Amino acid sequence: MYKTNPNRNLPQKKRIAPKARSNMRQGTHERMRPSHPTSRRKEEISIPPIEPGVIRIIPLGGVEQIGQNMTAIEYGNDIIIVDAGIEFKSEDTPGIDFIIPNTKYLEDRKDKIKGLFITHGHLDHIGAIPYVINQIGNPIIYSRRFGAMMIMKKHEEFPHLPKLNLNILEGHENIRIGNSFKINTFPISHTIPDSMGLIIETPLGSIAFIEDVRVDNIAGVPTDEEIEQYKRFANKEMLMLTMDSTSIEKPGFSLSESVVVKNIDKIIKDAPSRIIIATFSSQIERIIAIIDLAEKYGKKVVIEGRSMKNNIEIVKQLNLMKSKNLISLEEMNDYPPNKILMLATGAQGEEFAALMRIANKTHRSVHLEKTDTVLLSSSIIPGNENSIVKLKDNLYRSGAKIITYLDSDIHASGHGNKEELRWIHKQIKYRFFMPVHGHHYMLRQHAEMSMSLGTPPENVVVPDNGSIVEIYENGKKIRVRKEKAPSNITMVDGFSIGETQDVVIRDRQLLAQDGIFVLIVVVDSHTGKIRKSPDIIARGFVYLKESQELLHQSRLIIKQTIEKEIAGMHPIDFDYVKSMVTDNLAKFLFQQTGKRPLVIPVIISV
Amino acid sequence: MYKTNPNRNLPQKKRIAPKARSNMRQGTHERMRPSHPTSRRKEEISIPPIEPGVIRIIPLGGVEQIGQNMTAIEYGNDIIIVDAGIEFKSEDTPGIDFIIPNTKYLEDRKDKIKGLFITHGHLDHIGAIPYVINQIGNPIIYSRRFGAMMIMKKHEEFPHLPKLNLNILEGHENIRIGNSFKINTFPISHTIPDSMGLIIETPLGSIAFIEDVRVDNIAGVPTDEEIEQYKRFANKEMLMLTMDSTSIEKPGFSLSESVVVKNIDKIIKDAPSRIIIATFSSQIERIIAIIDLAEKYGKKVVIEGRSMKNNIEIVKQLNLMKSKNLISLEEMNDYPPNKILMLATGAQGEEFAALMRIANKTHRSVHLEKTDTVLLSSSIIPGNENSIVKLKDNLYRSGAKIITYLDSDIHASGHGNKEELRWIHKQIKYRFFMPVHGHHYMLRQHAEMSMSLGTPPENVVVPDNGSIVEIYENGKKIRVRKEKAPSNITMVDGFSIGETQDVVIRDRQLLAQDGIFVLIVVVDSHTGKIRKSPDIIARGFVYLKESQELLHQSRLIIKQTIEKEIAGMHPIDFDYVKSMVTDNLAKFLFQQTGKRPLVIPVIISV
Repeated sequence: MYKTNPNRNLPQKKRIAPKARSNMRQGTHERMRPSHPTSRRKEEISIPPIEPGVIRIIPLGGVEQIGQNMTAIEYGNDIIIVDAGIEFKSEDTPGIDFIIPNTKYLEDRKDKIKGLFITHGHLDHIGAIPYVINQIGNPIIYSRRFGAMMIMKKHEEFPHLPKLNLNILEGHENIRIGNSFKINTFPISHTIPDSMGLIIETPLGSIAFIEDVRVDNIAGVPTDEEIEQYKRFANKEMLMLTMDSTSIEKPGFSLSESVVVKNIDKIIKDAPSRIIIATFSSQIERIIAIIDLAEKYGKKVVIEGRSMKNNIEIVKQLNLMKSKNLISLEEMNDYPPNKILMLATGAQGEEFAALMRIANKTHRSVHLEKTDTVLLSSSIIPGNENSIVKLKDNLYRSGAKIITYLDSDIHASGHGNKEELRWIHKQIKYRFFMPVHGHHYMLRQHAEMSMSLGTPPENVVVPDNGSIVEIYENGKKIRVRKEKAPSNITMVDGFSIGETQDVVIRDRQLLAQDGIFVLIVVVDSHTGKIRKSPDIIARGFVYLKESQELLHQSRLIIKQTIEKEIAGMHPIDFDYVKSMVTDNLAKFLFQQTGKRPLVIPVIISV
Repeated sequence: MYKTNPNRNLPQKKRIAPKARSNMRQGTHERMRPSHPTSRRKEEISIPPIEPGVIRIIPLGGVEQIGQNMTAIEYGNDIIIVDAGIEFKSEDTPGIDFIIPNTKYLEDRKDKIKGLFITHGHLDHIGAIPYVINQIGNPIIYSRRFGAMMIMKKHEEFPHLPKLNLNILEGHENIRIGNSFKINTFPISHTIPDSMGLIIETPLGSIAFIEDVRVDNIAGVPTDEEIEQYKRFANKEMLMLTMDSTSIEKPGFSLSESVVVKNIDKIIKDAPSRIIIATFSSQIERIIAIIDLAEKYGKKVVIEGRSMKNNIEIVKQLNLMKSKNLISLEEMNDYPPNKILMLATGAQGEEFAALMRIANKTHRSVHLEKTDTVLLSSSIIPGNENSIVKLKDNLYRSGAKIITYLDSDIHASGHGNKEELRWIHKQIKYRFFMPVHGHHYMLRQHAEMSMSLGTPPENVVVPDNGSIVEIYENGKKIRVRKEKAPSNITMVDGFSIGETQDVVIRDRQLLAQDGIFVLIVVVDSHTGKIRKSPDIIARGFVYLKESQELLHQSRLIIKQTIEKEIAGMHPIDFDYVKSMVTDNLAKFLFQQTGKRPLVIPVIISV
């Protein structure tokens, strides 16, 4: 068996059983509920210091999800970090802005950190920098130019943070870091300029560290450029390979970006009138290619969408584009529609992105015409299906011609399919393999591929977030320590950043299901009677206006329960009374409505 | 142009702007908030009665979504209905059980209803019966046997409802309905026994009504049985064809179910030990085939999952299965693992379904072994991606061998791909075409296919839910009336059924994002001072335990605002005071936390 953690139970979103749920609330205080810190404060398992002659590789994020990529590599007194990305929120984390890697391990060793290397400028690799950089001692960030520009642009949104220490690499560099590491960078194919892989030389051997990667190919045959790129690994033996697993499940080679551009070329050429192309703003290379195609056919290009505009700004600053055909939205009306190509964000049906606003007729100046051609040059990111359905429905209602990746090959992913990954494995001789960048099952499939290519199972490690992987015995052996680096989920929620949000998230989930029912009662402590009728606040429960009888009955139950319990009670045990009224009312509400709102009693004694 | 409703704006989930959101709450009363019935009560547009010699076809659901399929067909004094299905809840409707068709049009004409025809027993075609049947006058339900059993099984959960009037059809029947209709039924291929199409003879001609359908084929060539089935349409001209559009975007022919069964055969044969196969409980035909395969290889079959058990019960009652190899879960240990095949629900990662409980180790008696083989014999239903990722991660952690439809052809859909639909079009001569069963863009694509096959654009109608489609001028022409049948979304939410839930849904969405913050203040009406410190109840907002300073400051703002406003106010305008404290507090909380909880003030004067 290869090394992983088969007994680890993934945390399951717990559905609270009806009874437990009403009980859960019964003892709560109406003010300052201390919440339920159960299981959150895990015992800190003390992690022994690194031994001499041992390399530690610790994925702090990105190996149980798509996103929050961050890996620490430690030797002696030196730590380097690769990437610091965010994960976008999911349905499991309502209200959350995003999730970032847990950097506790690094915070405790911040003096050892000698540098943060950025493989490329996508948010799942750079987005966490503003949230973690101070905590880890503001180390030097090594990045190639495009990623550096993306980082600086992002950093402008955080004026209270100190200046970043950016060291811009020009490619093919050889950087000595501390006493332990020498880093070579090399270009790899992805979807954004200046993507790079790392060869991390250590005293025990070299680690080839490859994050997001694809292999340019023509119908499954890698291009000469790709073959040339990977020749650097010929006749070398790497101590370890670590690599992107995102598209391991997809068979064969992915579509070549050159085919995509060729198909878009034909569509632009044939379009009778205006063309609107929506794609990810992170697909920089395709965006540049499309602008060049527009130039070729004498069309002006309008950019719509903030992130797209920002990225084009960087492209212009770095002189990555020859074309001079960009115009503003206001200038669009100066040209006939067949001279216009619009590049827009929103191919995933994002609520406020340009294409969505155009499609649902809330865009201030662009209205779809029947003569328009709309290209959705992207695939569906899992989780966005519903939004994309809405987008397509609205687009189709306009009567415009709609072309998606299902109709024509107008999108290719930045993550290599199974055979691309296999091809890279074959170019690199390595002793140990550790898959990264993906859900656990993707990593497992990637590990199986490595073993099928001859890597002994004991040399393959499938890590979890926080796994402490060690190469020891002079580089002969690899192990996963039983201790883990802290890996509790860390969330950005408004201005709050931390691990302590699970009770808040759970409440949001409950509120989203059945709402909340707060009852406020003023009790005369002398008579034990309720003053006035109880106040009731309900949100997200039932439509109160049509529930007068329900409210009337609820007030009766509240009044009767409280007065009955209080009668003869000296002193009044308010916790007990509250628990009784919660139980009775929750039961009644469920019987009447089939819903289980959070019932919260407030008793004010005057 | 063909007929549709291009100017219709799809309702957009409205994001409430920060300012509007805090305003929205400022005038609310703490008790019995009358909610916001804005735009909900649409003006009833009076629909003129049907004219003599006109056929009305009104899709009441199913043409803007997958689910809630229901169509009314009206002529003279007769109405027949086809199907009455539910739509499962989506992320747009938190807490909702499901969505049903709006039957207002039928309720207003219930005396004309002569029968409800059920095309097959899936929930998106029968699930709404318990919620609508009484409202539409409990008409006779015509169904073939399997669907009838599914309907009766479901009806057992509603003991308070009157007995259904079920008329079980034996296939190939010819039923006279009222003065206007004669119905012929004919078998079609889907995934559940007794699926049928309808030929609805009317005084103006016949309507071929085909809901869920696929075409059995071998590598893209329809089988002889399919060719035979559709010969009934040879040399006939249908007035209208209406048909399933679900898989119009998928190219070519779908995988043949016989190939799927052949591949599963091989996997069962080769499995070294226990086999667990998860599929939809609605895939009745495949489930029967798998049980027969188990018998062939001398294996006993354990059924796990309530819906699967229910459906097998019906299969047994109808003698649709030869095999006698079913055993109970308790008997499983009496056999060696290589003699066991388990059929389980949960291939979509449903939280409490059998396979999910097995995978996350909460199943009471089944534990995954490394020697097990697990088949996920289903594709991913859009929206379930995250759940399936969790399922696969957990399954992989067990070390068992996992096989999905991506690894091997072990799943085929019940909905025909584009070329299957095109093949059916070619078997049927028709004058008018109306696509059904799908999102709007699917219907549009299906309409385009019909036109590409020669149907004049003016003979093609793409309806919305509630569209009143009329065939008139002795069957020569078709139109969509400008009036619409009521089509507001109708939801089942606990025991509540109705249209009036949108304010509740919106509150749930807001609560899920930023939570709720209730403040309770007791004011001494004599002194204008606050008695005690204000009570605060917050849920789903921030982690209060670590927000003591925030709470302290909030109490100060509450106290200062209220006492300042009340000072010198006679009588006290509580609405005004509440609005001030809400505004001040909401602003403060946003500044401090970046979150915008619902702020609700309760002021009690004593």
